[in-house]
Amino acid sequence: MPSRRELANAIRVLSMDAVQRAKSGHPGAPMGMADIAEVLWRDYLKHNPANPRWADRDRFVLSNGHASMLLYALLHLSGYDLGIEDIKNFRQLGSRTAGHPEYGLTPGVETTTGPLGQGITNAVGMALAEKVLAARYNRDGHTIVDHYTYVFAGDGCLMEGVSHEACSLAGTLGLGKLIVFWDDNGISIDGEVEGWFADDTPARFEAYGWHVVRDVDGHDPEAVARAIEAARAERARPSLICCRTIIGYGSPNLAGTHDCHGAPLGEEEVAAAREKLGWPHPPFEIPREIYEAWDARGRGAEAEQAWNERFAAYREAYPELAAEFERRMRGDLPAELAARAADYIRRLQAEGPKVATRKASQMAIEALAPALPELIGGSADLTGSNLTAWSGSKAITREDADGNYIHYGVREFAMAAIMNGLALHGGFLPYGGTFLVFSDYMRNGMRMSALMRLGVIYVLTHDSIGLGEDGPTHQPVEHVASLRLIPEMHVWRPCDAVETAAAWRAALLRRDGPTSLALTRQGVPHQPRTDAQVEAIARGGYVLVDCEGTPELILMASGSEVGLVVEAGRRLAEAGRRVRVVSMPCMEVFEAQDPDYREAVLPAAVTARLAVEAGVPEPWLKYVGARGAVIGIDRFGESGPAAALFEHFGFTVDNVVRTAESLL
Amino acid sequence: MPSRRELANAIRVLSMDAVQRAKSGHPGAPMGMADIAEVLWRDYLKHNPANPRWADRDRFVLSNGHASMLLYALLHLSGYDLGIEDIKNFRQLGSRTAGHPEYGLTPGVETTTGPLGQGITNAVGMALAEKVLAARYNRDGHTIVDHYTYVFAGDGCLMEGVSHEACSLAGTLGLGKLIVFWDDNGISIDGEVEGWFADDTPARFEAYGWHVVRDVDGHDPEAVARAIEAARAERARPSLICCRTIIGYGSPNLAGTHDCHGAPLGEEEVAAAREKLGWPHPPFEIPREIYEAWDARGRGAEAEQAWNERFAAYREAYPELAAEFERRMRGDLPAELAARAADYIRRLQAEGPKVATRKASQMAIEALAPALPELIGGSADLTGSNLTAWSGSKAITREDADGNYIHYGVREFAMAAIMNGLALHGGFLPYGGTFLVFSDYMRNGMRMSALMRLGVIYVLTHDSIGLGEDGPTHQPVEHVASLRLIPEMHVWRPCDAVETAAAWRAALLRRDGPTSLALTRQGVPHQPRTDAQVEAIARGGYVLVDCEGTPELILMASGSEVGLVVEAGRRLAEAGRRVRVVSMPCMEVFEAQDPDYREAVLPAAVTARLAVEAGVPEPWLKYVGARGAVIGIDRFGESGPAAALFEHFGFTVDNVVRTAESLL
Repeated sequence: MPSRRELANAIRVLSMDAVQRAKSGHPGAPMGMADIAEVLWRDYLKHNPANPRWADRDRFVLSNGHASMLLYALLHLSGYDLGIEDIKNFRQLGSRTAGHPEYGLTPGVETTTGPLGQGITNAVGMALAEKVLAARYNRDGHTIVDHYTYVFAGDGCLMEGVSHEACSLAGTLGLGKLIVFWDDNGISIDGEVEGWFADDTPARFEAYGWHVVRDVDGHDPEAVARAIEAARAERARPSLICCRTIIGYGSPNLAGTHDCHGAPLGEEEVAAAREKLGWPHPPFEIPREIYEAWDARGRGAEAEQAWNERFAAYREAYPELAAEFERRMRGDLPAELAARAADYIRRLQAEGPKVATRKASQMAIEALAPALPELIGGSADLTGSNLTAWSGSKAITREDADGNYIHYGVREFAMAAIMNGLALHGGFLPYGGTFLVFSDYMRNGMRMSALMRLGVIYVLTHDSIGLGEDGPTHQPVEHVASLRLIPEMHVWRPCDAVETAAAWRAALLRRDGPTSLALTRQGVPHQPRTDAQVEAIARGGYVLVDCEGTPELILMASGSEVGLVVEAGRRLAEAGRRVRVVSMPCMEVFEAQDPDYREAVLPAAVTARLAVEAGVPEPWLKYVGARGAVIGIDRFGESGPAAALFEHFGFTVDNVVRTAESLL
Repeated sequence: MPSRRELANAIRVLSMDAVQRAKSGHPGAPMGMADIAEVLWRDYLKHNPANPRWADRDRFVLSNGHASMLLYALLHLSGYDLGIEDIKNFRQLGSRTAGHPEYGLTPGVETTTGPLGQGITNAVGMALAEKVLAARYNRDGHTIVDHYTYVFAGDGCLMEGVSHEACSLAGTLGLGKLIVFWDDNGISIDGEVEGWFADDTPARFEAYGWHVVRDVDGHDPEAVARAIEAARAERARPSLICCRTIIGYGSPNLAGTHDCHGAPLGEEEVAAAREKLGWPHPPFEIPREIYEAWDARGRGAEAEQAWNERFAAYREAYPELAAEFERRMRGDLPAELAARAADYIRRLQAEGPKVATRKASQMAIEALAPALPELIGGSADLTGSNLTAWSGSKAITREDADGNYIHYGVREFAMAAIMNGLALHGGFLPYGGTFLVFSDYMRNGMRMSALMRLGVIYVLTHDSIGLGEDGPTHQPVEHVASLRLIPEMHVWRPCDAVETAAAWRAALLRRDGPTSLALTRQGVPHQPRTDAQVEAIARGGYVLVDCEGTPELILMASGSEVGLVVEAGRRLAEAGRRVRVVSMPCMEVFEAQDPDYREAVLPAAVTARLAVEAGVPEPWLKYVGARGAVIGIDRFGESGPAAALFEHFGFTVDNVVRTAESLL
């Protein structure tokens, strides 16, 4: 039987060799954290390499994602479907061993990490998911949800602001099965951290209400094991295990320095490290007894089998709960959702409420949420403004996690990354609200939703100067346009209650990517529509008002400006103009329609085109063409009542009519 | 003489009345913090209402910017140029009393606040500015830089992640003259904070190395004064004064609840509060003795005069230092900078180095920084990657602040907001680096640079898939485009060392707005240019390679793709095509050129146009027109060597030539 050190050294050599071969990567952290990983993965982690999607597996998050080779080595050695050829292809185009771990690309990778601080925040979401599911589904004698969430995090993650947001909330919510290993190696890219990171980190986490295990020698397996035992024994508070480690452990000349952080050690140093580690085997050759000692497949299959039996007994006792749990964990939507949404939208079109679209959003949630136990909402301390709570909302608290609403506090970035964690865990369909302008604060979290293709829903209210008096700090100008630029992100900016409901339906049905809903603070008129027009909302852009024959002018808009162009169109029509009005609530969905449909909505022959949106004009240039025009806002807003601002910035019927006429 | 409480009540009534009149705003925090403000502003704050730009004034930052009426009331009562008519116009279009405090709009407002957490971070920058200037300019017996930075902050600011980044760094750097008042009122918008904000905040700040004054009754002027004395006495550590307050203090029915946070109290409750406060005067009428007791003009003028005398003695003793200090505080650039930059650019054009533009950026800093003592650099822990340090860089530390380089740690957002604070303080020209993709983390800080029109320089390296193996988490795709959407932001993406130097020159000379420099990790070729072409770089876009006669095709690009289109253009020219190549390093500057120049570069008659940029195509649509095309990337990147990625995504000479031919 190989020693623990030898088993850990297998990680070290795989990491340094793969980085060396790729001529790129980060050997320092994998070599530094190898001993911790060996104890955790071999003695504690509950997982089945043959089924990385087993619902009750422990989650493992490598928040310091640049240490990707640590994770790939662990997956490879444990018996996941990740062969030595994959390891050899580290960081090559098309390989399954990307520079940073990528969710969906590599079996066993629970989340995409690399952008620091977000992995630990995803993990807070996963641990919260476990707590909420346990509260909902576990029954006396039937514990079917019961797993840990383990995190490896470096100094960088703990310096990032989002770690404060996430860890503060984790403490408040008492996420006792979240266990974080802090890789306290004293080194970051700029060198020894003491010049820029002098926090008393254990005291900081105690201030968050965490259980902290101090002063663990990260190279002493016994000490690591004792710390894990202590952390697992503590069920009321999340645990931080402070592991002193030496970055690049095993590299005789570079260990303990930032030189081994983010670059290959070099052939000579790799050879010297082999010598020092007592590892005589050539690169990418691991002795059979090492593989055998690492192989987690037998233990994993047994663990999953035992859980399957427990779940069978649970299904016997609670068939409906079991079916719901399984449906949720599969990510299937309830069968009745689509019909319920269609009914609701039809009803709204008939009733024609004139409300702010943020209010319409709340109405849509109210209408659809009862069918969706997986829906988990929240707001970054703007519940009453975002209108994200509905009559069935129940706040999740430390004492009672059987709820469906998260008071995130003023923590936008954590909200996004926690929602990603909830979605990644499975069993949840998260939505969360803030002001559109503060999407800036969580922008990279939104990008990560898109990169991982998670069906997270962002409720972004107060979507223009129409919010009024709060002024330019709170008035988005460039935000709708800049969210549209994120690949895989769908941005809906609905014009009335009906389009808002359709946008919610689209967001809910879209389970392979995130949606941003840009919603007004102020009231908007209701638009009449035929049944066909109601259907057409789902195509992202459609003809809302048309003329006889070929139009000589197309007016187009989104959101609160649709009512304006409809009114202007009426005025122009009264003056004898043949005007078409196009509502464009979601450009991404419109772009995905077939060319015939797009041509039918925006015929190339009609070149007099005017777009109106209370934001930067850029996104509309592709639709208005060289002969068209855009009424937009390409400067910052102002503080004042909304009506005064719309007037000031030219969003008046008169100005639309005048500009339109100038195009004819 | 009115009592302290009566003086504080003047703030309360002005705030509740102005909010009531505007039918919009936040009365709760001004009413809750009025007693603290009275003590600080009347007994401690060193300022001269007649000269809000006095260099050595104390800085006061209202980080909870929604409490704007608190600040307006203080400015009005103290004698700033802000009359009662301004107060009455609170939140009206065109008034000087915007919904949130706006720098540049209202005398005495030190920074624009509202986006939570950033004010306190700006203040860290201001306190750092004071410490660095003091270290550089003060001499024995000549203390010319010696002021405090005071901050009011609420729970929201302390929940935001950026507060962690900023306060951790403030503790590490020992900013002893930073004094923060925490408005511990237990209320945020969603209600009582205990459900989502349960930090032991004093312990948290002690973990950052702060001096914490606990348990201060924020309605007891004596206790507040004692706390301020203790905080001022502590010179080695920043101070947090924890003030227990009642939100909306004075409102008999709403005090202590979130109902008075962000909405008018209502006529009836305003009347009841008047009663309770014993304030018999009508709205906007302040008794003369209250004004007199508040008037800070006499004391302020004396303080400034005393400083002026001290400065005169200093000028006598150290004329050069004094001149430099005054020049820096005025914000004037050294006279020789422009010539030095022009020489350097000419020399580079002649030498033609083939380097990555991040390296060219470092060379530009090296060339220009010796003339710029106000230049203060840094990086969010990527110094060796961003190449932001030069041979004259000296790190600022707790013990020795006489430096010009800040190791921000992995704290992008704080870096941006601290740079804003340095710029706002005066005396500094800040630049800071991170990877372009992580501009997401600091996006709202960058927006605030733009909104305040601060000349901050963002050094954003690794600007495309060209960074290679780190993969999609690290590869910007939408970032250049989305930074271009921020009003007032200039985005330069230079193609070689010469354009990089010109971009740096433009960024340095631009003192009324921020600049983002998007720079390559990988090497780029040098482009030949005539003197006129070298000059034309400053116009943002120019003809880099031309043909005889009218071109039949225009190729255009920015940054690393310029070399590609030059090569493709050569190939097409060899095949007999009349091709023009346009380099477009800065669209915003190009857009600001006169129409004739733009038409000369991009003649409307030439409709076959192809743009190439390794990012989303959106920004180029306006230049290529309906008949043109863009080779861009509208999906996420991949992990792999840069050369393989450029090939994979179609950034090859062959593909450019093929696409160009399809347009002809």
